[in-house]
Amino acid sequence: MIIELKDGERLDDLHRKGYFLIQNKDIFCFGMDAVLLSWFAKVNKGEKVLDLGTGTGVIPILLEAKTKGKHFTGIEIQKDCADMAKRSVSYNKLDEKIHIINGDMKEAGKLFDAASFDVVTANPPYMIGSHGIKNKKKPIAIAKHEILCTLTDVITAGAKSLKPGGRFYMVHRPFRLPEIFHVLGSKGLEPKRMQMVHPYIDKEPNMVLIEARRGGRPRMKVEKPLIVYKEKNSYSKELMEIYGYCHKEEGDSL
Amino acid sequence: MIIELKDGERLDDLHRKGYFLIQNKDIFCFGMDAVLLSWFAKVNKGEKVLDLGTGTGVIPILLEAKTKGKHFTGIEIQKDCADMAKRSVSYNKLDEKIHIINGDMKEAGKLFDAASFDVVTANPPYMIGSHGIKNKKKPIAIAKHEILCTLTDVITAGAKSLKPGGRFYMVHRPFRLPEIFHVLGSKGLEPKRMQMVHPYIDKEPNMVLIEARRGGRPRMKVEKPLIVYKEKNSYSKELMEIYGYCHKEEGDSL
Repeated sequence: MIIELKDGERLDDLHRKGYFLIQNKDIFCFGMDAVLLSWFAKVNKGEKVLDLGTGTGVIPILLEAKTKGKHFTGIEIQKDCADMAKRSVSYNKLDEKIHIINGDMKEAGKLFDAASFDVVTANPPYMIGSHGIKNKKKPIAIAKHEILCTLTDVITAGAKSLKPGGRFYMVHRPFRLPEIFHVLGSKGLEPKRMQMVHPYIDKEPNMVLIEARRGGRPRMKVEKPLIVYKEKNSYSKELMEIYGYCHKEEGDSL
Repeated sequence: MIIELKDGERLDDLHRKGYFLIQNKDIFCFGMDAVLLSWFAKVNKGEKVLDLGTGTGVIPILLEAKTKGKHFTGIEIQKDCADMAKRSVSYNKLDEKIHIINGDMKEAGKLFDAASFDVVTANPPYMIGSHGIKNKKKPIAIAKHEILCTLTDVITAGAKSLKPGGRFYMVHRPFRLPEIFHVLGSKGLEPKRMQMVHPYIDKEPNMVLIEARRGGRPRMKVEKPLIVYKEKNSYSKELMEIYGYCHKEEGDSL
């Protein structure tokens, strides 16, 4: 298949079903958080999934590879990202399984039927506000800071789109956990499962994975800690499994 | 000193400043949670501390031993527990530093001046409600189940008693974390620090230590995991330090 790569773009191997992803390091490249979220999220056979702020589409493409979900939708406000995502979907011959929309998740109520998804995933901007950012129009700033959407926007869009009993999966920073639980609860999404991600066993967590359920009853399972590195430059066994290679190759960028 | 021990009571060495504690296994013996809370809680020189549901007074006595706090108050609803706590305080010659009140924390607004404590600690009942408990009057059931006070009662009493900027420390079960954050927030106590306690490194946490601040700004520090055992029957180095003995002696019950 011939693929059109624009200036600055590259094609990265996702190590799953032979899928590749178009990325551009000047716009955005996905990180470990997206990989961990696609591992933490459970998608059952036949389920419909929505990914909020899908970027280059890595989460729907990974979930399509890993699960038996029926259909995956990704919505992305940044035109250049959404364009890369669409071309990656086509390159991987997934047009019938994955639909990428260039749009604003704050319009989710208009774009999608209410309560029409079984699962919603989100890897939203972590940083509050946009103070001190020189160029607020920069794609990387938009992906990392709450410039075009806030935590509340993401959770509101998820709550509207989920069926009753549907599952919301999010990766975020631990320092915002009380606020995350508060906003989830205020939108009818009950936290049901959580896992802290620590770079090393003796370090503070720098990511948290959360599962909430629309209309769920209060009681949350806290998983054992997920440890990223066993030592410097050497992933833990669990991370190697999550990344899909137990034989790590030189130069792997995932 | 002559000490009056009632039927079923024993005198346990706290391994701190020569202090002992009167306990009765048919009424209640403190557990690791109390020891961890007294380690996690920070009390600065000259500060006034209130312990809600103090049981046999282990937390005020340990905090007096470990910190430079000025005064410690413990409130306990169960007469027999409060009585043991009072006698332990006297036995350790701490009557001028520690005051035990046999009373109901729901009356905190009447018993104490509002906003008069720098620090409040609580090791409350973990279990919701009292379904399936045969004897709801049993002291151990009261200590473990929300029979005489709920999570909201504990947090409400803490919020009323704390000065603005004062610190609330609690040990609880991780499965109730969203509810804990919600109630803390609703009473003006902002979660500022949290540590999960795991029996083993590869197991789910079974306790969580929380610090909240009255009127604090949102941003929580999540500490590295606290691991209790390095292997079966063998405490981790950190736990040995917390318990105050790096040379564990046979028969230690703490």
